[in-house]
Amino acid sequence: MATKYTDDSYTLHTDLYQINMVQSYWEDNIHNRKAVFEVYFRRLPFKSGYAIFAGLEKIVHFLEHFSFTESDIDYLRTLEYDEAFLTYLSELRFSGNLRCMKEGELVFANEPMLRVEAPLGEAQLIETALLNIVNYHTLIATKASRIKQVLGDEPALEFGSRRAQEMDAAIWGARAAYIAGFDSTSNVRAGKLFGIPVSGTHAHSMIQAYKDEYTAFHKYAKTHRDCVFLVDTYDTLRSGIPNAIRVAKELGDQINFIGIRLDSGDLAYLSKEARKMLDEAGFPEAKIVASNDLDEYTIINLKQQGACIDVWGIGTKLITAYDQPALGAVYKMVAMEEEHGELVDTMKISSNPEKVSTPGLKRIYRIINKINHHAEGDYLTMEDEKPQEEEKLKMFHPVHTFLSKFVTDFDAVDLHEDIYENGILVYELPAIDDIKAFCKQNLQVLWPEYLRALNPEEYPVDLSQKCWDNKMRNIAEVQAKMLSK
Amino acid sequence: MATKYTDDSYTLHTDLYQINMVQSYWEDNIHNRKAVFEVYFRRLPFKSGYAIFAGLEKIVHFLEHFSFTESDIDYLRTLEYDEAFLTYLSELRFSGNLRCMKEGELVFANEPMLRVEAPLGEAQLIETALLNIVNYHTLIATKASRIKQVLGDEPALEFGSRRAQEMDAAIWGARAAYIAGFDSTSNVRAGKLFGIPVSGTHAHSMIQAYKDEYTAFHKYAKTHRDCVFLVDTYDTLRSGIPNAIRVAKELGDQINFIGIRLDSGDLAYLSKEARKMLDEAGFPEAKIVASNDLDEYTIINLKQQGACIDVWGIGTKLITAYDQPALGAVYKMVAMEEEHGELVDTMKISSNPEKVSTPGLKRIYRIINKINHHAEGDYLTMEDEKPQEEEKLKMFHPVHTFLSKFVTDFDAVDLHEDIYENGILVYELPAIDDIKAFCKQNLQVLWPEYLRALNPEEYPVDLSQKCWDNKMRNIAEVQAKMLSK
Repeated sequence: MATKYTDDSYTLHTDLYQINMVQSYWEDNIHNRKAVFEVYFRRLPFKSGYAIFAGLEKIVHFLEHFSFTESDIDYLRTLEYDEAFLTYLSELRFSGNLRCMKEGELVFANEPMLRVEAPLGEAQLIETALLNIVNYHTLIATKASRIKQVLGDEPALEFGSRRAQEMDAAIWGARAAYIAGFDSTSNVRAGKLFGIPVSGTHAHSMIQAYKDEYTAFHKYAKTHRDCVFLVDTYDTLRSGIPNAIRVAKELGDQINFIGIRLDSGDLAYLSKEARKMLDEAGFPEAKIVASNDLDEYTIINLKQQGACIDVWGIGTKLITAYDQPALGAVYKMVAMEEEHGELVDTMKISSNPEKVSTPGLKRIYRIINKINHHAEGDYLTMEDEKPQEEEKLKMFHPVHTFLSKFVTDFDAVDLHEDIYENGILVYELPAIDDIKAFCKQNLQVLWPEYLRALNPEEYPVDLSQKCWDNKMRNIAEVQAKMLSK
Repeated sequence: MATKYTDDSYTLHTDLYQINMVQSYWEDNIHNRKAVFEVYFRRLPFKSGYAIFAGLEKIVHFLEHFSFTESDIDYLRTLEYDEAFLTYLSELRFSGNLRCMKEGELVFANEPMLRVEAPLGEAQLIETALLNIVNYHTLIATKASRIKQVLGDEPALEFGSRRAQEMDAAIWGARAAYIAGFDSTSNVRAGKLFGIPVSGTHAHSMIQAYKDEYTAFHKYAKTHRDCVFLVDTYDTLRSGIPNAIRVAKELGDQINFIGIRLDSGDLAYLSKEARKMLDEAGFPEAKIVASNDLDEYTIINLKQQGACIDVWGIGTKLITAYDQPALGAVYKMVAMEEEHGELVDTMKISSNPEKVSTPGLKRIYRIINKINHHAEGDYLTMEDEKPQEEEKLKMFHPVHTFLSKFVTDFDAVDLHEDIYENGILVYELPAIDDIKAFCKQNLQVLWPEYLRALNPEEYPVDLSQKCWDNKMRNIAEVQAKMLSK
């Protein structure tokens, strides 16, 4: 690193304006008033019909270690904050509540993925890191899930590390992809840290090191029982596949000839030719692994053209969420404690209607039809509402309010878990394979219309009447206040 | 973390196939033969006329710590590698040579940014991390430089952390942007680690915490002499700007009223209205800071519409390189030691002509015209060529070879520095402000035709005659070998 400070904490992983605001709060002695913030995004990424929430494990890791270190404070001192304020910061730990979706949960636009209730100073200081984490993890889990949707049960391997946006993205992206249904990652560090299966055989450089494919395949087979040979170093059909077949025949039962890998050229044409060659050579069980800038759109096309691909290697387009590399989740204050301890709603108005926030302490439920076991929509209520106790639930579109339906015979599933209570972690992080299973199971409650990769239906995220009325009242109050000046 | 292993090393930040190949090399006892790899990309990102190389500092950090830890080895043991191979891995350190461009150097397609000469096993194991680093750092430095090109001397602030692809991307992206001409970052951790200036004032939540702008601005001003007020929480023209002006007038010399910030709405219209209001109120010096999904294209448009923006806040579009979130740099073997110690060329052929590599140990020079001090192009030679000693240099297009020119009276600048010699770091990493200055100075040797944001000219990256002949000979050899089968 270029400075004398060691990288011993993530607590400074925040925007400077957070610290500047907290300094004002602290001077004004309102830093310990309770504030409530929600994290949500305003539009689904990739024009998708749904998204998959991820990031909680890293958030917990961040909050468990939330504490300014000596080197953090030393650095802040150079920015000329005063000593009493630095002492306040140095003693800070996360002491609030966190309610959050479980990783692998389905999430839609304008519903809170998580809610922080904490002293204003703390709630403000953790914003940047929380968004940084949730935005990336959720984005990649969603992209991976979309790819898995078009693949069905066919295996998907993540190997985007070399194109990932730096190292954290490589490993946490691998984890998000696994949660959302991928079968393995190539990144060994991700395998070590998260317990994800790792996969990979050899690269073009191995062919180059031995100058020819025949020798390289033989050498590889000598040390590895499971063999997938990469066949496009020189010429796939004239050299690569014939050499793979020759080696597989020569070694017979000494190896487990899993198949071949294609990494360039026209994958539809080459995979069909490869299939013929392998079948004719007596290897009908040999798999064809393909990679090269694949995503859900290319896969749909390749399948439509009858490509004979059994296993899919996905890199760049997944790990960077190439067609939309950022999720725009925001962290908005919905309530704040007043001088005498009363919690009052807060909101942000904007000339851009989609940026108007929904004020107040709220809960988010998924309304599941008990008869067909599919979701009718999600339902945002005020904190004290109990939709389960209602016999007939009126659900209406939050913008086009005339679009409405009544639902009966339903379960209202609270989508949030308590993660922190007064700074204490009260949630046990699940094993990664349980998160993966949970994610898979969640997808089954959605009608296929919402799961389609292209042009899906819009899933309803409705406000309760009380929540809607409260929002309208708050807007009217703010507008009246402005006009009165 | 989900497993028992601690995250105590980046050495496993590699694709599994690297380890599987190295296992074969080790069994075959060729793991210590010298191999030479180059890193280059095949196409400039963003249809740009140039790119800015970055990433060396992180590469040095990676290589200095390249060593499998006990927990790495424990994990690999679960993948059933044999003990003797694990012992070899556990004793491994980087013992090779590295030649590399300096950070802030101009780089173009198909020229080596760096060259690794090392025992085959080591060279293979470091590939993934090197690409992961170079691809992201270079991508963001290039994007930032393009944005700076359209801004001229107007200040540019990086504040994309919340939308970055996880934490490493936030801080290393901030650093890359600073190298390429940005003035500051909002990420305090990046400030601490890299010595980059940090900036930021307050967010919408501060207005919400105090319920109205007038109070919030006053409270902020009480603790901060330098004030930039965010004016779009409720209504920019009717509420935000009038309140900012009111507070600035009331406080007068007690604060340094730097200006206002716009973060939504039509920035062209609002900035012009804001300018009028500030001027009429007697604050002609007050600056207008603007942000909201800006990049070089939007900036060109806003300027063309006469927007009165003085300072530019750039987030999502920069930190994720939104319009092309991955650089496709590859790591290709160009030479390899044979059984008897001779270094021979290696290459990769592909049905995709742009994927054919250029074999052999090479050097890359920038040919600077001594009269006008501008670059004539870059010139790729074999290792032993000395272009500076030639009186008249023939430069020709590597694909359309009939396009050629003769250059006289030139300087041939070697673009690589020796970074490692036999595993010893022989290069002193420069201070960040020296890198920034070096980058700025490099841009001055390019004709403006290459710097244009849209539709730039193609900068020549030519092969020497010897290098071209060598490539053709190698292709012919590989093809003859294939046909002979």
